[in-house]
Amino acid sequence: MSEPLLDRDSGVPLYAQIRDVLRGQILGQHIAPGEHLPGELELQERFGVARSVIRQALSELADAGLIRRERGRGSVVVPTRLHHRRAEQAGGLSRQLAAAGEHLRTVVLDLRAATAPDAAVPALRTADAWRIERLRFVDEEPLVFMRSWVSRELFPDLTADAIEGSLLGYMRSTGVVPVGGPRQLRAVPADPTVADHLGIDVGTPVLLLQALTNDDQGRGLEWSTLWHQPSTVFDVDAKVETRVDAPADPAAPGSPDFDRVRELIAELASIIGPGRA
Amino acid sequence: MSEPLLDRDSGVPLYAQIRDVLRGQILGQHIAPGEHLPGELELQERFGVARSVIRQALSELADAGLIRRERGRGSVVVPTRLHHRRAEQAGGLSRQLAAAGEHLRTVVLDLRAATAPDAAVPALRTADAWRIERLRFVDEEPLVFMRSWVSRELFPDLTADAIEGSLLGYMRSTGVVPVGGPRQLRAVPADPTVADHLGIDVGTPVLLLQALTNDDQGRGLEWSTLWHQPSTVFDVDAKVETRVDAPADPAAPGSPDFDRVRELIAELASIIGPGRA
Repeated sequence: MSEPLLDRDSGVPLYAQIRDVLRGQILGQHIAPGEHLPGELELQERFGVARSVIRQALSELADAGLIRRERGRGSVVVPTRLHHRRAEQAGGLSRQLAAAGEHLRTVVLDLRAATAPDAAVPALRTADAWRIERLRFVDEEPLVFMRSWVSRELFPDLTADAIEGSLLGYMRSTGVVPVGGPRQLRAVPADPTVADHLGIDVGTPVLLLQALTNDDQGRGLEWSTLWHQPSTVFDVDAKVETRVDAPADPAAPGSPDFDRVRELIAELASIIGPGRA
Repeated sequence: MSEPLLDRDSGVPLYAQIRDVLRGQILGQHIAPGEHLPGELELQERFGVARSVIRQALSELADAGLIRRERGRGSVVVPTRLHHRRAEQAGGLSRQLAAAGEHLRTVVLDLRAATAPDAAVPALRTADAWRIERLRFVDEEPLVFMRSWVSRELFPDLTADAIEGSLLGYMRSTGVVPVGGPRQLRAVPADPTVADHLGIDVGTPVLLLQALTNDDQGRGLEWSTLWHQPSTVFDVDAKVETRVDAPADPAAPGSPDFDRVRELIAELASIIGPGRA
């Protein structure tokens, strides 16, 4: 590990700089849960500071619940309580969390008619939209702040009460069939709004999920941006991809193979039965 | 949007505080690419500062390439160059980027025999491991810093030269068959090591990918932590999960439906052709 350098002219106290370096190494998994931090003497030498400075930094990490100081044995990284969700599952968060023994509660913070952002219009096929802000709590901790855009033409009667349980559930009750859609995941700094809702500092890294959910007709039902508590983990199973030097697609639209594939898919769908598509 | 409050006693200049608030709103997608920032007058009122302070903040955002100032028309958010990769694909990053017209280059920074961290041992079935640090560049920009742990028993002859192209490629050359494995995605602050390698500030949000890749025997081949440049986007397609109260599976093993599903899948596979499974 390269030695972090302290900036003695920055005006930021040395103990705070050291605290932030160690915090980054813990949150960034350079020091894993259950592992010991280097001892006070080693930290003293590494950073070139007095023992009292190291003690102040460690004390703040302990107060933040990141480490546990053990008498005579140094400091151990405390396992963080992480909230796992499946990256490839749309909706069903309530059930995913229930499987981990956790309870999900959703609060509608704001609901109004508004013009959808440019990026959402092609998906929603309209700019005349509902703008919905929701906050989801796991037990009493805010887990995710969500801003969703929904077509007003498709759902003219949408109300805050109706979507308090589940927006997708409400949509189903009107006869549409949400099937899923593309998601993008990024790491971004929390802006003041997100920080305020999630109870974290401005600038804290949060997972941003940009999500489009379509129905079985290919219509965009919900275009949403979700900002997640830093304790959130998205799980996904990855497969080694097939080789690029595969032969040209034998089942292109219009080919006999393509038509046969359509027939086979229809037969598979009929076996699997309605209501499970 | 709740009004961000400036801290006039923090010692941080007001223009820098405003710059950081706006920067967070741009990176966090509260203001989308192509959208206009509020005008100088509106920003002046919102933050309660002089016009020169707003101008200094906007000027720094323009210098950072986040906005483009248009004479008489305000400031437009510049689309960021994002690097997309598929969350559910293991390996093949080179090909994913080539599809976007980008060139990938990998540099082995460090290779040594070392004791694997506790979390990796169950997967690798040994603590006697290679510790590999690599840095991947897209064109000349560092995209991802990777720390990998690989069993020394399984790959006794591994060298830096042999894995410079592709670690999975090297593994294949020894006769193992990497098939994929679980991944976890989180947002974490860059620690000094990561910041140094990626050329970003300490504390910048980065996507952390924790990845295990197994072979077709279920052996753990590679346990890796990857820290991504903030411009990285992970794409995944999500599906609405099947209902928990769905009727019992009509296509359970042993049923006639199940056998027919197997036949249909075989026929589909034969159309799609060998080598593409």
